[in-house]
Amino acid sequence: MSTTAKATARAGSNIAFIKYWGVADASLNLPLNNSISMTLGDLYTTTTVEWDPDSPLNADTLQIDGAAATGSKAERVSRHLDRVAQLAGIDRPPARVASHNNFPMASGIASSASAFAALSVAAAAALGLHLDTRALSALARKGSGSASRSLFGGYVEWERGCDDASSIAHPLQPADHWALIDLVAVVSTAEKTVSSASGHTLAHTSPLNTARIASLDRALAQVRSALATRNLAELGPAIEQDALAMHAVMMTSSPSLLYWQPATLAILQAVRRWRANEGLPVYFTIDAGPNVHLICEPAAAAAVSSRLQQLDGVQAVLSSGPGAGTTLIQEALF
Amino acid sequence: MSTTAKATARAGSNIAFIKYWGVADASLNLPLNNSISMTLGDLYTTTTVEWDPDSPLNADTLQIDGAAATGSKAERVSRHLDRVAQLAGIDRPPARVASHNNFPMASGIASSASAFAALSVAAAAALGLHLDTRALSALARKGSGSASRSLFGGYVEWERGCDDASSIAHPLQPADHWALIDLVAVVSTAEKTVSSASGHTLAHTSPLNTARIASLDRALAQVRSALATRNLAELGPAIEQDALAMHAVMMTSSPSLLYWQPATLAILQAVRRWRANEGLPVYFTIDAGPNVHLICEPAAAAAVSSRLQQLDGVQAVLSSGPGAGTTLIQEALF
Repeated sequence: MSTTAKATARAGSNIAFIKYWGVADASLNLPLNNSISMTLGDLYTTTTVEWDPDSPLNADTLQIDGAAATGSKAERVSRHLDRVAQLAGIDRPPARVASHNNFPMASGIASSASAFAALSVAAAAALGLHLDTRALSALARKGSGSASRSLFGGYVEWERGCDDASSIAHPLQPADHWALIDLVAVVSTAEKTVSSASGHTLAHTSPLNTARIASLDRALAQVRSALATRNLAELGPAIEQDALAMHAVMMTSSPSLLYWQPATLAILQAVRRWRANEGLPVYFTIDAGPNVHLICEPAAAAAVSSRLQQLDGVQAVLSSGPGAGTTLIQEALF
Repeated sequence: MSTTAKATARAGSNIAFIKYWGVADASLNLPLNNSISMTLGDLYTTTTVEWDPDSPLNADTLQIDGAAATGSKAERVSRHLDRVAQLAGIDRPPARVASHNNFPMASGIASSASAFAALSVAAAAALGLHLDTRALSALARKGSGSASRSLFGGYVEWERGCDDASSIAHPLQPADHWALIDLVAVVSTAEKTVSSASGHTLAHTSPLNTARIASLDRALAQVRSALATRNLAELGPAIEQDALAMHAVMMTSSPSLLYWQPATLAILQAVRRWRANEGLPVYFTIDAGPNVHLICEPAAAAAVSSRLQQLDGVQAVLSSGPGAGTTLIQEALF
């Protein structure tokens, strides 16, 4: 490779309806359970990878949202670039990576999902490495589990699988199948004390973990069916129960992970009140953090959003419908 | 019975370290699991039962904290009086029952535990019925499960048992064995939307319930050992984990029971912050409601209490050490 090779990819974040929590194999990032998510069209990461054999520093550089990133974040990206180079069968040159999120990074939106999906696609394209979506999904998974799902648009299931090749995502329904809205109620933008990546290794210490995993076949079937038939009244209880079950596992792990804040509870109680008292069809889910995602159809979105913004402790409300999978938006130059 | 027969008993409430949640047999009130609690010396119910063959109304009357009580509460008390009369082998006369709590009824303190313990002892004594503590514990259990524990002072375990005679409590350690303090942070005095009595019948609908039950042998052993050796650092993590596991079961039941409020989370996070940042040895537990019980030793109580009172949403802080079992304070007249 003698010339600079560069590519840019864009990947939507995703919100899981059945959560990924707990690793079965930490080296391959194989999960304990299948998960299902909606890829978010309006909350995305754009990443440019430039392989630079003539790098004066002879080292990778990483910019996130315009600022140089070092330490564990940069190391995690470099390890991922090593994987891409290994797939290409080359001794890799240093890379310049610039990543930009169109949402606040610590807003409770899964930035590592969109970041590692975009990084995988951009890095492979910049090397001229042609991988099919199965191989890209497996690659993205090793960067961040939920990134395997952001490869695809619409509604996506990540099969737990049993090895590197089989633990990959596939689309369940396209984005235009059902226009659900994710309203993200941001209650804290503080960095998490325990990252999801290290939290995953604690799942097995909870006395409730195996019971949650065992219950998921039924929950996954319910979510697939609700998505196929666009049935929010079937989808909603299943996603609330699994979000609560995942947080139950987190809270009862050793050490205990308590991601919720007072405003988290204010939102959960409000959602149930709006449903019970006003018949507002909206359900919640919560990732590994204090922020709450409210899922509804477009007809209810304005009512939900305005009520949300009046709650104490809600700092911002972001919004997204389903979107496309990871897309190469600037080709490599060869 | 020709003369009026009257007796008064006092019973402390109790705070469970390993919770009772879920019934195995609803008619006998047999629980799914053993539970362990501390009987509270300073938060108690005083109940007078007067059997009155000459009652002009020919019906039971019930006063709670000076106000006439009717409806489901009064029926529950009358059903309990039926049980006492049945044990005595008599057709019972109507009764006048007056019950007084020295704490606000909906404050998150288990008023049904102290109420049914006191009612059992007073009603039996007023009939001249001599029951040993095993029989009284079984009787109280049928009124309210946790009342079986309030029969005894200090630290008490309720054996799940397999029938009416075997599902009874017994003391583990006397009250003077260890001067733990329960500081009750009251965040809401609203009546619960779902009473614990009906919540117990939902436990089996949670996918996490059997896992919690299966994990309790270990947790019970840890709590017994921590009590025996007065080891708060061993007791604390076990009681926090079981409180969180019980609420996990509640939240993931169908329908889902979400008892926590924003201030509940503020307290849980504060307790962990005080432990981590200040080394303050205090742990939390939570009954079926939004209020939080903080468990510490006397040396830390003032510091915990003053910090608690500065938290947003804490309306009051009540306090109690361990106390005596249910006591007859006025004998029947025969």
